[in-house]
Amino acid sequence: MKVDGIPYRTIWLDADGWSVNVIDQMRLPHAFAVANLRSLAEACEAIRTMVVRGAPLIGATSAYGLYLALREDASDDAMTSACSALLATRPTAVNLRWALERMREALLPVPPAGRVDRARSLCGEIADEDVRTCESIGRHGLGIIREVHAAKDPGEPVNILTHCNAGWLATVDWGTATAPVYMAHDAGIPVHVWVDETRPRNQGAGLTAWELGMHGVPHTLVVDNAGGHLMQHGMVDLCLVGTDRTTRTGDVCNKVGTYLKALAARDNGVPFHVCLPGTTIDWSVSDGVGGIPIEQRDGNEVTRVSGTLPGGGVATVRIAPDDTRAANYAFDVTPARLIDSLITERGVVPPDETALAGLFRGHHGE
Amino acid sequence: MKVDGIPYRTIWLDADGWSVNVIDQMRLPHAFAVANLRSLAEACEAIRTMVVRGAPLIGATSAYGLYLALREDASDDAMTSACSALLATRPTAVNLRWALERMREALLPVPPAGRVDRARSLCGEIADEDVRTCESIGRHGLGIIREVHAAKDPGEPVNILTHCNAGWLATVDWGTATAPVYMAHDAGIPVHVWVDETRPRNQGAGLTAWELGMHGVPHTLVVDNAGGHLMQHGMVDLCLVGTDRTTRTGDVCNKVGTYLKALAARDNGVPFHVCLPGTTIDWSVSDGVGGIPIEQRDGNEVTRVSGTLPGGGVATVRIAPDDTRAANYAFDVTPARLIDSLITERGVVPPDETALAGLFRGHHGE
Repeated sequence: MKVDGIPYRTIWLDADGWSVNVIDQMRLPHAFAVANLRSLAEACEAIRTMVVRGAPLIGATSAYGLYLALREDASDDAMTSACSALLATRPTAVNLRWALERMREALLPVPPAGRVDRARSLCGEIADEDVRTCESIGRHGLGIIREVHAAKDPGEPVNILTHCNAGWLATVDWGTATAPVYMAHDAGIPVHVWVDETRPRNQGAGLTAWELGMHGVPHTLVVDNAGGHLMQHGMVDLCLVGTDRTTRTGDVCNKVGTYLKALAARDNGVPFHVCLPGTTIDWSVSDGVGGIPIEQRDGNEVTRVSGTLPGGGVATVRIAPDDTRAANYAFDVTPARLIDSLITERGVVPPDETALAGLFRGHHGE
Repeated sequence: MKVDGIPYRTIWLDADGWSVNVIDQMRLPHAFAVANLRSLAEACEAIRTMVVRGAPLIGATSAYGLYLALREDASDDAMTSACSALLATRPTAVNLRWALERMREALLPVPPAGRVDRARSLCGEIADEDVRTCESIGRHGLGIIREVHAAKDPGEPVNILTHCNAGWLATVDWGTATAPVYMAHDAGIPVHVWVDETRPRNQGAGLTAWELGMHGVPHTLVVDNAGGHLMQHGMVDLCLVGTDRTTRTGDVCNKVGTYLKALAARDNGVPFHVCLPGTTIDWSVSDGVGGIPIEQRDGNEVTRVSGTLPGGGVATVRIAPDDTRAANYAFDVTPARLIDSLITERGVVPPDETALAGLFRGHHGE
């Protein structure tokens, strides 16, 4: 997508032909900066400190991290230890494991002398594949937006509510939930996005608002509390969100607060769609609420907020009394019964086991 | 309630016998400071800048503001112009109008020379009456907490979720939604409160967490997104919230986001109760969603967050890109169908027209 008019991906090979560039997401939205990764250690640090984040992008970055490791030492032992180091950065990210296993399987049969070249081209393939997957999700979601637009008064924008950042910054390009939005915008369909700020880490305010603004998509930031009111008053035509993990029955584990928006959507007859690549489906889980452990993060993310000071410079302020204890559950589960459809790279299906298995059977273990 | 072990109200006559003290809520939770009001202008400024806030406390402060005005000029004309000035500070607050009308009706028959003394004692009556109202709400709500506690395993705390600040800081003492909590705590019933931070103004993080902490009530701060997850996992026994305006049919207009919590409560079988004095009932409105205009506030409240810097001092940081537009709807409406009961100073009733009229008939125009 575009930044100041120039098309970007979130990760790419530098002009030097070997080092790896990523957009430094820790500095957004306050500054647009590119970080250059030149070693395994730098790649691990970038994932761990959330310079890059979002499951698909973490996967791609870990692949590039393994490639950088092989430049230093292409032996089997070095490859094993590099994979361990990368896995330890964000141990719960499914795509990280998937990308590393794919790399390792392809590289083990290659003699060490040929591994660096093969790894570099594999990284490119993984990144390109992620872009194609998101493009497909976008095309399928675009059909839904077109239908909504056709039913509205001429010239009226399609109002879409989204939560967190399932945007191109979370992938290599296009995003998942944002892919249909960008495609509709680029196709001349008027769209307007309600962006949930997404406390506690404010990925909506800091990342989604930034990327939509840079690409020129009209949007309005709201607090996470606002969605119910917007839907009660007909100001939302559809909700589009991403997912971190999807059960085989169509329950969706996504950023905390997603469930509340799905409840409001159902209560007001607003369609609620989840955009996902097939790789987020966990075929081993059938009950999302009971079966998916919810990550608890540092309470300081709740009691403190970071942003820019009026005179410039970034600061972190404390919003609660000094001794206030905070709990920080990072995700919640939206039951399939509240979801209208799953928009995947293979098509749009209702959130149920038969439909999902029909779409992905043979490719993900069922 | 207590601050550092000392019982306080939010507004009281100074030891000098004539000036008025209020807790400066703009400085909470970062500093506990008392503001001294000595003129109509200072009272207006305190309401306008939210040094005092909360419908009942705004009402009491406006009464004291009129009293201070009469000290300067006790004529009919001065009284009329003082009422206009006070009404203009927060034009939508129902209690403000109610308190001023009550003062004016009582003072007009009094000769100007006697008005200051009469006004001062009337202010005391209004404040004392607010305290008694909140005490009654607390007693009625305490019965509900007792029942929940009796049904739990011995020693297990009753987990209560609240939104925004319907605490003693919003009233003269006790609060509305917090009154049952303080009474249960004081009675030795173990309670634990989940405090929604309540973006955009963070009244939960800044005020509710502060007042519960000062009185020694166990509590945990969470982001507004978390309540659905908590309720899905049995971590909430009941919800207690306040209301800014209640329709005669029991719809509740309260801080934005209340509706989302009511939806989650219903979806998970968690009782959802609203605590209110009869004065918040608007007998002229039957449909809350259609009939109550929702105040829109400055978008800067969404894009900026205030708090303390690590080295001390208060700062405001911007969390979104510079040019991001934000919408800021201050309230939403929770339909009566999602509410289990209304806890009033006259008892606990289901949210319907017959029950409300039965409780308050003859006192509020029906």
